[in-house]
Amino acid sequence: KNILIVPGDGIGQEVTEVGKNVLIKIAEKFGHEFSYDDALMGHVAIEATGNPLPDETLTKMRASDAILFGAVGHPKYDNDPTAKVRPEQGLLRMRKELGLYANLRPIKLFDELLGASSIKPEILKGSDILFFRELTGDIYFGEKGRKNDNNTAYDIAEYSRYEVERIGRKAFEAARTRSKKLCSVDKANVLETSRLWREVIQALAPEYPDIQVEHQFVDSAAMMLIKDPRRFDVVVTANLFGDILTDEASQIAGSMGMLASASIGDSTGVYEPIHGSAHDITGKGIANPLASVLSAALLLDISFGLKEESDAIIAAVDKLLKDGFRTRDIADSTTAADKLLNTETAG
Amino acid sequence: KNILIVPGDGIGQEVTEVGKNVLIKIAEKFGHEFSYDDALMGHVAIEATGNPLPDETLTKMRASDAILFGAVGHPKYDNDPTAKVRPEQGLLRMRKELGLYANLRPIKLFDELLGASSIKPEILKGSDILFFRELTGDIYFGEKGRKNDNNTAYDIAEYSRYEVERIGRKAFEAARTRSKKLCSVDKANVLETSRLWREVIQALAPEYPDIQVEHQFVDSAAMMLIKDPRRFDVVVTANLFGDILTDEASQIAGSMGMLASASIGDSTGVYEPIHGSAHDITGKGIANPLASVLSAALLLDISFGLKEESDAIIAAVDKLLKDGFRTRDIADSTTAADKLLNTETAG
Ligand SMILES: CC(C)[C@H](C(=O)O)[C@@H](O)C(=O)O
Ligand SMILES: CC(C)[C@H](C(=O)O)[C@@H](O)C(=O)O
Repeated sequence: KNILIVPGDGIGQEVTEVGKNVLIKIAEKFGHEFSYDDALMGHVAIEATGNPLPDETLTKMRASDAILFGAVGHPKYDNDPTAKVRPEQGLLRMRKELGLYANLRPIKLFDELLGASSIKPEILKGSDILFFRELTGDIYFGEKGRKNDNNTAYDIAEYSRYEVERIGRKAFEAARTRSKKLCSVDKANVLETSRLWREVIQALAPEYPDIQVEHQFVDSAAMMLIKDPRRFDVVVTANLFGDILTDEASQIAGSMGMLASASIGDSTGVYEPIHGSAHDITGKGIANPLASVLSAALLLDISFGLKEESDAIIAAVDKLLKDGFRTRDIADSTTAADKLLNTETAG
Repeated sequence: KNILIVPGDGIGQEVTEVGKNVLIKIAEKFGHEFSYDDALMGHVAIEATGNPLPDETLTKMRASDAILFGAVGHPKYDNDPTAKVRPEQGLLRMRKELGLYANLRPIKLFDELLGASSIKPEILKGSDILFFRELTGDIYFGEKGRKNDNNTAYDIAEYSRYEVERIGRKAFEAARTRSKKLCSVDKANVLETSRLWREVIQALAPEYPDIQVEHQFVDSAAMMLIKDPRRFDVVVTANLFGDILTDEASQIAGSMGMLASASIGDSTGVYEPIHGSAHDITGKGIANPLASVLSAALLLDISFGLKEESDAIIAAVDKLLKDGFRTRDIADSTTAADKLLNTETAG
C-alpha cells in the first residue's frame, strides 16, 4: 500500500510528521509494508511552483492508495482579498479532481477531556456525532465573480439531485450502523438548494425505514449543537453549513486539535485534521498532533479496512490522555508542566 | 407615536401580547401617548388572505413609527419543500420593502442566568456582544430557482460595495460607543462576496482609526464564540452567517427566549425576538416572553430615543430574574415551581 503524505502549510508540517510516524510504527507492529511518498500543496506549493496544486502532486495523488493531509492557508492571502492565486484553490481543486464528495467528521469526546471544553461536562458526557459534509458542491464550486464595474460580487450555490442523493445514502447507511437516527440540516425556509436537498432526503427515507429522519434548519442546529449535543447522532449537510457546524462542534470534543476527518469518493481517500494551518502557533512545537494521529487511524480503517490497527491508535491516544499528557489546547489547570506535550515529543 | 403590533405565527402571538402590555404600562408610567394598531403576517396572513404579507399590512407598516413583531413560520411548509407560498416570504419581503438592512442583535447575559447556559459560567461571565447582521442582501435575496428539468437548484449570493459599506459604517459607529473593537466575519478564503466584504471593511477602517478591526472566517468564528465569547464585542457579518452565528450565540445568553433584535434602515424600525414561531410549544403558555419585552425596550431606545424608559424595562427584567422567576427554558434546578412563569402571567 502506497501512502502519499501532503503536509501543506503552517502546523500542517508539524502534525503530519507525527501522523506519519504513527503509521510507520503501526506498520512495524502489525507487520504491514506501507510505502510513502510526499508532495507539495498550498502556500508552499505556490512558493515553489506558482501553483497551489501542482500537476505533479495531483498525479501522485491519483496513484496513491490513501493520502495523509495536513492543512493549507497563509495569512498573507487572507489579508489580500484581491489575490489571484491562493492556497485554498489547491484544496478545493483536489477535492473536485479526486471526486471527494463525502467528508466524514466524527466528533467524539475522549472521557479524559470532559473538563477541557467550554461546555459543561454534564451536557457533553457521552456526545458522539458523525457529520457527513458534502464536499464538492454548493457555493464553494458554483460560478463566482464580479460585475457592475467590480462593484458587485456574486457566488452561485448549486446542487443537483444526484449530488444530494449520493451523500444522503452514505449518511443513511452510516446511521444504520449507529443509533439509527439521521438529522439533515438545511435552510429550506429560504434557499432553493436546501429545498431540493430536503426533497431528496425525504425521497430516500422510505428506502431506509429503520432510520428515523429529522430535518433541522441550520440556525437552529447551530444552537442545539451547544445546548444539547447528545440529541445528534449522524448529521448530513451541505458543504458550507458543514464547514461552519463542524468547526463549532469541535468544542464538543474539547478542541479542534482532536478532530480528524476523512474525505472519500470515487477513488483514493484523503485524511486530515479539521484544524487549519494556524500560523499563529506554527513553529512553536505546541500544535496538538492528535488530529493528525487520529486521521491516520481513520485512513487505516476506511481506506485499508485495518480496523484492529485503527483501534490500536485510538487506544494509544486514550492511554496518552489517561496518563495525563496534554498539549496546551486541551490542558486543564491540573496538567503538570512535565506532561505538556510538544508536537515533536508526541510521535 | 404610532406602534404597529404584528404578532405573526405560533408563540409570536403569545409573546407579542406581553411585549405590547409592557409598552402600555411604560407609557402610563412615563406619561406618553402611544397609539396601537395590529396587522397580519406569515401563516395567519396566508390563511386569511392567501398572501404572507398583505398589502394592507405593508401600508400600515409604512405608516407606523415603529413595529413590534413576533415570529412567522409553520411546520406545514417546512415539510413541503415544493410549497409555492410560504410564511417566510412575508418576512423577507417586509425586510426588503422597508429597507431594513441592519439587524442588531445584542447578546448580553443577565448575571442571574449565568447558570442557565450549557456553557461554563467562568467562560461566559461578562460576555456582551453586539451583532450587526446585514439583512437585505446575500443569498437570501439573489435569484434562485431550478434548472435541468428540475434536477438542479441554485441560489445566487450577491453583495454590492454600497450594501457592505452602509452596514459596515453602522458597526464601526457602534464600536466607537463600546470597547472600540470590531470583528468582521466572512469566508474570504472561498467566497467572492466575502472578498468584496473584506475589501470594503478594510477600506473603511482608516476612517475609524480609533477602532481595532479584526477579520475572522465564519467557521473559526463559530468555534471561538463558544470557546471564548468574551473576545467578541461588536461583530459585523453577512445575512446568512449572521443568521447562523446569532442563533448559536443565543446560548451565551442562556436561551433564545432572552434575545431581542432591532431591524433598522431607511425609515420605520422592526423589533422582534430572535426566536421563531416554535409551534412545538405554542398554546402551552410556557414560551419565554422576555425576548419580546426586551424588543419593546429596544424599540423605545432606538426608534423613539426614550433611553430612560428602555432602561426601566431592562431593570424590571433584571429584578424579575433576581426574584427567581423563570420560564422553563431558563430554569435551573433551584427554581421553585411557584416561580415558573407562564407567558400570560409575565405581562
Ligand atoms: C480552508 C478552507 C477552504 C476549508 C473549507 O472551508 O472547506 C476548511 O475550512 C475546511 O473545513 O476544510
Ligand atoms: C425565518 C427565517 C427566514 C429567518 C431568517 O433566516 O432570517 C429567521 O431565522 C431570522 O433569523 O429572523
